[in-house]
Amino acid sequence: MNIKEYLGEMKTLIDNTLDRYIPADTVYPPDIYKSIRYSLFAGGKRLRPILVIASAETVGGNREDVLPFACAIEMIHTYTLIHDDLPALDNDDLRRGKPTNHKEFGEAIAILAGDALLTMAFQIMSEPSAFSLKSSTLILKSIHEIAKAVGVSGTIGGQVVDIQATGKKLDIPTLEYIHTHKTGEMILSAVRVGAILSGCEDDELHALTCYGENIGLAFQVMDDILDVEGESEIMGKTRGSDEKMRKVTYPSVFGLSESKKIASRLIENSIQSMEMFGERGEILKDISEYIIARRF
Amino acid sequence: MNIKEYLGEMKTLIDNTLDRYIPADTVYPPDIYKSIRYSLFAGGKRLRPILVIASAETVGGNREDVLPFACAIEMIHTYTLIHDDLPALDNDDLRRGKPTNHKEFGEAIAILAGDALLTMAFQIMSEPSAFSLKSSTLILKSIHEIAKAVGVSGTIGGQVVDIQATGKKLDIPTLEYIHTHKTGEMILSAVRVGAILSGCEDDELHALTCYGENIGLAFQVMDDILDVEGESEIMGKTRGSDEKMRKVTYPSVFGLSESKKIASRLIENSIQSMEMFGERGEILKDISEYIIARRF
Repeated sequence: MNIKEYLGEMKTLIDNTLDRYIPADTVYPPDIYKSIRYSLFAGGKRLRPILVIASAETVGGNREDVLPFACAIEMIHTYTLIHDDLPALDNDDLRRGKPTNHKEFGEAIAILAGDALLTMAFQIMSEPSAFSLKSSTLILKSIHEIAKAVGVSGTIGGQVVDIQATGKKLDIPTLEYIHTHKTGEMILSAVRVGAILSGCEDDELHALTCYGENIGLAFQVMDDILDVEGESEIMGKTRGSDEKMRKVTYPSVFGLSESKKIASRLIENSIQSMEMFGERGEILKDISEYIIARRF
Repeated sequence: MNIKEYLGEMKTLIDNTLDRYIPADTVYPPDIYKSIRYSLFAGGKRLRPILVIASAETVGGNREDVLPFACAIEMIHTYTLIHDDLPALDNDDLRRGKPTNHKEFGEAIAILAGDALLTMAFQIMSEPSAFSLKSSTLILKSIHEIAKAVGVSGTIGGQVVDIQATGKKLDIPTLEYIHTHKTGEMILSAVRVGAILSGCEDDELHALTCYGENIGLAFQVMDDILDVEGESEIMGKTRGSDEKMRKVTYPSVFGLSESKKIASRLIENSIQSMEMFGERGEILKDISEYIIARRF
């Protein structure tokens, strides 16, 4: 199966599973479910849940076993988008070409929909049916890993520093802190828990950690680059919105050409760290190529 | 030990443990930790974590074993207060006599502090050291129970219906939905997980569930009553704020005198359900008495 088919199949699997977790006919209380589904099915490419599954399969695990965690991470990712777009934070009106959640449902429902998605993720990860076949200890370890990655020492910490840095001249370590924390930690945890839940060996986890760190940062650098030179229809948001917001980005600190070199080097590193897996590492390598080709 | 001493000792234990989880000298990223500690140490009476511990001890469990969950529930409770106070939701300026979190730190940090507390709660509950002595399966079951109680089918659902009902004339089932979901479910889950983590028997859990349901609703009814006739310094907020906000409350639907009768009956039921525990049930019975005496 080639990468395009694989990604298509995984996206369908994830979309269908998310749809089962939150069916369209869940009606009470009204609006909150509509608001949740609105953002959850807004056309995301499902990079993070696909990484959970691909990582599991790389170490010989099963996609069905890690599917609850894959969906949970997508819910967490969606909550961060909803809250980041709020007027008090990035104040964005458009996301993936559609009005942002608070523009469509109001701020109160948007805040609560984010809260609900975050909470639901932990509900799903700890669901009894999710661990019938696996070790409860590995599940707890994975929940802990994700909570840490998206908490104040990860995603939220990155967002705090990003907000407070906006409009200021930044040193490189702070820029790196923002990017690795705001985006990188969640991507890294997606790669790691796929393998942890599948009972991987230590050296496998080590290699995948190296892979996850590199693509996590590469993904954010590419996102910065895309904001400068991308086309609005690909991004679903206005080009140059980082500049308008006076966000600190890789291109604003290193320039466009150097930023591209940095991204290429990170992607190269990620591909390198897949060597030990031989053919089983192909999917994750292909995902790296997709990231540098701006297809994620 | 009498109840007053017990509650004092438990409050100190919980405060000290929370302080260890989030030390005052945690400095990076700045502001978010200050904001978290500001609300977490704003003088809460720690009812929910005390219920976790008291319930554990009622079935013969140890306070140390359930302490991470007790602290986690207090973090979740604190997050709900921070988000509920936001301008887009209840738009409250005062909480426990102090400016609300967003008044002190701004809306962006308040939203992120709430998100951080919710996430941290799950991080703590799944912490490896928290389950060295206990069954991972019971821990997962407890995490799941709490996530469900505070999610869209619990606390958040109640808050959504409450917001949308504000200013409207309500039927009694909707009023009950709001109260049992917005406040009741979290209190019930505090009582239940204390016992579940301690490996209680089915009939014990059944009795404690009955206890938790009754005090959960009683607590909210008493809160409504206090809003009508309490003194500002006890409440730390302005008397009559529910009426001003046109919130639907028990007194507004049943009148003050009937609401008091309802609260008394609920408390009576909760005390009754403790009978099977004999002397071991005294602490929870005393907590019921505290609730009706408006000391919680």
